[in-house]
Amino acid sequence: MASDSGNEKEKTGFSLEPVRGLRDFLPDEQSQRQRVMDTLREVYERYGFLPLETPVMESFDVLSSKYAGGAEILKETYQLTDQGQRKLGLRYDLTVPLCRVVANNPNLAKPFKRYQIAPVFRDGPIRVGRYREFIQADCDTLGAPFGLADAELLALAVQAYDALGLKVIIKVNDRKLLSGLLESTRVPEEKRGDAMLTLDKLDKIGMGGVAQELLGQRKLSKECVDSLVAILTMLQKAESDEQTLDILEKQLSSNQTAMDGIRELKELLAMVDSFGASVRLKVKLDPLLARGFAYYTGPVFEAYLTDDVLGRAVGGGGRYDELVGAFLGLKGDRVPAVGFSVGFDTVIEALRLQKGEGAVTSVKSSIRVFVVPIGPEARPKCLEYVQRIRRAGLNAAIDLLGRGPSKNLDYANKAGIPYALIVGKQEIDAGKAKLKDLRTGEEKLASIETILELLTDEQAMGKL
Amino acid sequence: MASDSGNEKEKTGFSLEPVRGLRDFLPDEQSQRQRVMDTLREVYERYGFLPLETPVMESFDVLSSKYAGGAEILKETYQLTDQGQRKLGLRYDLTVPLCRVVANNPNLAKPFKRYQIAPVFRDGPIRVGRYREFIQADCDTLGAPFGLADAELLALAVQAYDALGLKVIIKVNDRKLLSGLLESTRVPEEKRGDAMLTLDKLDKIGMGGVAQELLGQRKLSKECVDSLVAILTMLQKAESDEQTLDILEKQLSSNQTAMDGIRELKELLAMVDSFGASVRLKVKLDPLLARGFAYYTGPVFEAYLTDDVLGRAVGGGGRYDELVGAFLGLKGDRVPAVGFSVGFDTVIEALRLQKGEGAVTSVKSSIRVFVVPIGPEARPKCLEYVQRIRRAGLNAAIDLLGRGPSKNLDYANKAGIPYALIVGKQEIDAGKAKLKDLRTGEEKLASIETILELLTDEQAMGKL
Repeated sequence: MASDSGNEKEKTGFSLEPVRGLRDFLPDEQSQRQRVMDTLREVYERYGFLPLETPVMESFDVLSSKYAGGAEILKETYQLTDQGQRKLGLRYDLTVPLCRVVANNPNLAKPFKRYQIAPVFRDGPIRVGRYREFIQADCDTLGAPFGLADAELLALAVQAYDALGLKVIIKVNDRKLLSGLLESTRVPEEKRGDAMLTLDKLDKIGMGGVAQELLGQRKLSKECVDSLVAILTMLQKAESDEQTLDILEKQLSSNQTAMDGIRELKELLAMVDSFGASVRLKVKLDPLLARGFAYYTGPVFEAYLTDDVLGRAVGGGGRYDELVGAFLGLKGDRVPAVGFSVGFDTVIEALRLQKGEGAVTSVKSSIRVFVVPIGPEARPKCLEYVQRIRRAGLNAAIDLLGRGPSKNLDYANKAGIPYALIVGKQEIDAGKAKLKDLRTGEEKLASIETILELLTDEQAMGKL
Repeated sequence: MASDSGNEKEKTGFSLEPVRGLRDFLPDEQSQRQRVMDTLREVYERYGFLPLETPVMESFDVLSSKYAGGAEILKETYQLTDQGQRKLGLRYDLTVPLCRVVANNPNLAKPFKRYQIAPVFRDGPIRVGRYREFIQADCDTLGAPFGLADAELLALAVQAYDALGLKVIIKVNDRKLLSGLLESTRVPEEKRGDAMLTLDKLDKIGMGGVAQELLGQRKLSKECVDSLVAILTMLQKAESDEQTLDILEKQLSSNQTAMDGIRELKELLAMVDSFGASVRLKVKLDPLLARGFAYYTGPVFEAYLTDDVLGRAVGGGGRYDELVGAFLGLKGDRVPAVGFSVGFDTVIEALRLQKGEGAVTSVKSSIRVFVVPIGPEARPKCLEYVQRIRRAGLNAAIDLLGRGPSKNLDYANKAGIPYALIVGKQEIDAGKAKLKDLRTGEEKLASIETILELLTDEQAMGKL
């Protein structure tokens, strides 16, 4: 591949590869991506979320606003200047544009439930699975305080992964509980962010590893680490979310923040229950779940594959009640908000792993029938037939090159098209056409009406 | 609006409007845009075109390649530099990325039929209906020479506008015919491009206007203009495409280029005929149709609303056999190509005009039912019901704020949701729910099973 590109570069003076960190998606792969996007759209709309679209470019002022992404993400923001000398940037997420739109349209009816599935851009280091243009698939409810809006997003997330065919567990926590836990164990305020990150690793590095990292890297006092370890050890014995909450309630009863978090989690899990056992089964309390972003203020969610083959979340979200109001610069005018975002690229990767490496490229073509005229005199009849197939609601293509039958069948086979319709003088004289199943090799001579019936039946039964 | 923005700017330090030339699409409008995109995708796939996706950013070398968009478009290209000091630009069309992908993947089976519906960016002057980010909706067939591939795109275009509910006529011409006409009337080569633009205005400025502009602004000789006018006058008497071609065949018989064009047009119209009378009826020969782009080499197409209220094309395309090969820098390796592009923004504008100004904002919500609990004790039952409605395939939302019934009905009404499902203690005790048709005010008390049946029936009949 590399040498090929080198050759091309000599001929053209430039590389034909996409720019480093960016990707082309050829039809097989893009068809799968489209299906994933369509599935998400369908589930999001089923829950009453409506589409919003914003420009790829935003004013740099908006992107760098104090309450937006923060300094880290600004380093990765693509910047440009338009002909009017405006400083612009490519959006690095869909949350900042959402805040801007809501602030700019104060008359939008609340709650405002919107989804946006669109590319975002980050000029950061390239690693496996990390690209500079990638799709975000966000659902957010603005203008509804903690309550059903949060539980509804969990039900939506469960249904979304289910519809995609992925087995997941959605971990839930509350920022207030985690803050309260660190407050009551006297972790100094400036060290709480780092401490959260260490606690979140308990499953991976074990209790000993956590204690070591808190003492060493995070420089917490021994007293502090001991009280944290004592609580964590108790939590490990809990056999249900209810027991976990009971333990925390006893241990943290003197801390109001923690108790607020525990109350929210109890309410949240009860509401999730009302959505049905199938939803509740997929939701699991994890009192150490941190979810990185500083702007979360209440419940946080993270979705993981049940076998966690990827070793990272396939989606997540949470409540961020301060962001929109702060962004708007109106401290009195809070806009409570909660969101969930499906990790589009990780979902694609998970589907690939689940179905085996080859699956993505061997996805069936969306073309159902390839029409093969035998000789130019069969062409008008073939055009009539291909149009009848299309009118019946089936995607169809026809030979455009006047190639011979064997070359045409070869092309259709390689493209993964299930059926060829072969029509020559003999078939036309008999008032029939030959339908060849390219998966089995089986052939059937029949009238076009019979063939259309067979094809639409198969399509209706999902066999095609 | 302007003063509002001013106020916001004082509070936030920046404007909350989208950047000049860019647009936000709120849910009502974006829902309509999504429907148009979905319709186009469906028709494109029906004809065997498959999706391709490429990055928003391309290397500036690719965008400025000699055979790409040309100097004019480069002036309007957004430029930026990434952290690796690569010079990049935002794509200004989808054709250049297509050429790059095809050149970079020589093993793609030909013909390669791809579609791409995606935003492109041009930092040009802002006029009514012209924006700096806009959607292109392109279909192209690469690797098939003149023939069925061209006719198929006309059939596709007819079906696409039909599916969108727009009445159009698709004008067809051939670059070879137009070149031959100018050659044989001795228009100097360097003036042919300009002369084409003037001829294309015949319908608007009349024969006198055309003659005047050719003599004056275009500086053609009187002899030259006289022979052009003579042929145009004859053409105005033609009553069918066949008569037009007969006249041209007689007048231009000594010019090989023109005769090649006439032969192609005859073949093309005959093939269009084979696609059925409904397709042929929508296609009309226009021997003066120029279609601006320099890269067309054969047939060109332009779609106009039959009443032409917009005064500009709603789509167009043509054959460009030299572009891909030239782009690739391999003169021996031509990749014949033909494409059609639906003008996305003009289509949206046409739909708006057709349905009356208010139509776009009064589009029905995609939410079919809004569930209203009477009092908090009705909530669990309401959650059960909203999930049952969703499982039945209907988009549904539920009160998230614990508002009273009248506020909830008001919210649902304003959002354009057709039904409210009202559930209180009384309904629960009776094992029923109240379905209110918000369009008529009619109410019905029934079991949830009966209500689901009614709703799914209405949805199936397209009444919902």
